[in-house]
Amino acid sequence: MTALPLDTTPAPETATFRLDDARRRVDTALDRFLDTQTDRAPDACLRPLIDVVRDFTAGGKRLRPLFCYCGWVAAGHDPEEPALARVGAALELFHSFALVHDDVMDASDTRRGNPTVHKQFEARYPHQQDRRSAERFGANTAVLIGDICLTWSDELLQRSGIRPDRLHEAMPWITAMRTEVMAGQYLDIEQHEDTDDPAQRAWRVIRNKTATYTVERPLQIGAALAGADSGFLDELSRFGRALGESFQLRDDLLGVFGDPEVTGKPALDDLREGKRTMLVALTRKRASPRQLAVLDSLHGDPELDERGAGTLREIMRATGAAGEVERMVDARSENCLAVLDRMSIPAAADRVLRELVVAATRRHR
Amino acid sequence: MTALPLDTTPAPETATFRLDDARRRVDTALDRFLDTQTDRAPDACLRPLIDVVRDFTAGGKRLRPLFCYCGWVAAGHDPEEPALARVGAALELFHSFALVHDDVMDASDTRRGNPTVHKQFEARYPHQQDRRSAERFGANTAVLIGDICLTWSDELLQRSGIRPDRLHEAMPWITAMRTEVMAGQYLDIEQHEDTDDPAQRAWRVIRNKTATYTVERPLQIGAALAGADSGFLDELSRFGRALGESFQLRDDLLGVFGDPEVTGKPALDDLREGKRTMLVALTRKRASPRQLAVLDSLHGDPELDERGAGTLREIMRATGAAGEVERMVDARSENCLAVLDRMSIPAAADRVLRELVVAATRRHR
Repeated sequence: MTALPLDTTPAPETATFRLDDARRRVDTALDRFLDTQTDRAPDACLRPLIDVVRDFTAGGKRLRPLFCYCGWVAAGHDPEEPALARVGAALELFHSFALVHDDVMDASDTRRGNPTVHKQFEARYPHQQDRRSAERFGANTAVLIGDICLTWSDELLQRSGIRPDRLHEAMPWITAMRTEVMAGQYLDIEQHEDTDDPAQRAWRVIRNKTATYTVERPLQIGAALAGADSGFLDELSRFGRALGESFQLRDDLLGVFGDPEVTGKPALDDLREGKRTMLVALTRKRASPRQLAVLDSLHGDPELDERGAGTLREIMRATGAAGEVERMVDARSENCLAVLDRMSIPAAADRVLRELVVAATRRHR
Repeated sequence: MTALPLDTTPAPETATFRLDDARRRVDTALDRFLDTQTDRAPDACLRPLIDVVRDFTAGGKRLRPLFCYCGWVAAGHDPEEPALARVGAALELFHSFALVHDDVMDASDTRRGNPTVHKQFEARYPHQQDRRSAERFGANTAVLIGDICLTWSDELLQRSGIRPDRLHEAMPWITAMRTEVMAGQYLDIEQHEDTDDPAQRAWRVIRNKTATYTVERPLQIGAALAGADSGFLDELSRFGRALGESFQLRDDLLGVFGDPEVTGKPALDDLREGKRTMLVALTRKRASPRQLAVLDSLHGDPELDERGAGTLREIMRATGAAGEVERMVDARSENCLAVLDRMSIPAAADRVLRELVVAATRRHR
């Protein structure tokens, strides 16, 4: 779950709806909410946890809130509506929940350049020589902080200022997003049969863990809160799913072929981890028995070196899998633009969405 | 977090509002919801998890849903309202979330007579010789199942059929309950300074982890959903807090002095675990230096035998701490009845609440 590079400055013509403004509004809403929660905490023990939630959440790119804004503006509503900033902040808190628990499950050491939440609390344990207890304390506190982010995400949504009946109408998209994230997470950790078709499985992970969660649902939530009809929501779904998928496919390509100087991500991580991406699934499908044997011996090897990585890249290219994934990205990106062509949405939203399609699929990081 | 023994048959005069009927309605609502979630699951991988949620949740005594019913009926509403059964089921799913995560954090092996959720999934891991991976898989899946219970609890609440504006008005009590549970949980796991006054700390745990969560908030939620005014909700708060506190204090006494044949709980568990109850806090406060030294050497000793337990019980009695806790239970129970005396609530609800006060405070298990 990497974030889209949304740091590109929007074109000046989009001044009425600028992603930077939306991001700032979300940041403010989040800060205010956490201030309130600090004041209202039922017990002082929560304060240090709230500080960690604040620090952790501050590092996000606000991707989901921004897509939510896009849906809202696309459905003709005002980007300056304060309630929407709170909805965006609620989505960001939900994302913090997902990441904090994901990091515990993966036992990751770092996130956004800092120690993960469980690592931070592990280091705060008073008896450092008792490693097992320190680790347990770190993991337990991180699970609890994730739980807090999840329930507070809902609290902020309920207190956003969106009319209760409107919020009620948008709940199906919100609950769908939540459950899809759970499914995506379980697909990641479950011990599945190796008889599953790897490409089918890669699609399931992409759909549940990235495509719907990152783009499709936030867009729909924004539009549903604005009262959009089901035809409009279906079109946004087609657009969002295609964009989310192409984003993830591009991410997988960058994870293998990207320049680490540009992506900011160590070049061999995905290969060493043995990440079961669509690129890998298609390579397996197309590989000769000899190529498959080499792939099996190198992919997922935690000691993989640059030479082994080169061999893997070569197999991915030679089988045509890399090219196929590139074509998948292109097809989806064209699909997105076709949906926008036939939708009738305000120019400001149309422009921003087109920019996002280009940013997500043609990017180098 | 033990459950009240609500298996007592309500008196025949309460036929219009019977706890057994309410419990059955909640069970049905829960089953139907989980059927729906199975049909609507975004990915088939969720099915085995839903089965575990169903089995786990089936074991509950429905304490929180029943208090929610009491609040609803006390505020003059119909106990046969189908939406309330779904609200009750939502509270029960929330409780499943709290227990499943609590068990992971405590690394407990059993719950309600069965292996805990993380233990169940640990046993399903295909490579049993790799203990560390099996344990991680069990814990990760249990965290995720807790997350699912938490988000579905909210989904069921939103889809309960309660009018959105009414639900919106009751949200402050629902969100307060959720956050208090988080605080209670953190008080349990945090590494606090031993300079804290132990009795003060025991109150904080009782209030956040049991009193408000088990009785006060569910009562208020039921009444708030029925549109009760703030004066009524405040009275219910006084009643519920006093009942919840006396319930927990009685539980602590039973954990030390109860007959394991009757309580169904191994007699030495609380003492071996070194549970920091009010009873223990008051014993520490009243103990002589010699008694304190014996207490320190025996309380929390995982190998404690019946003779050591006898010594601890003797100290708790001799210091007068046990008697003081008994008086606290009585004072709170009188308080509850006094609140009921001055409230004007329907006879059916009044009768059931009086029964519950007796059941919670005079019980032997």
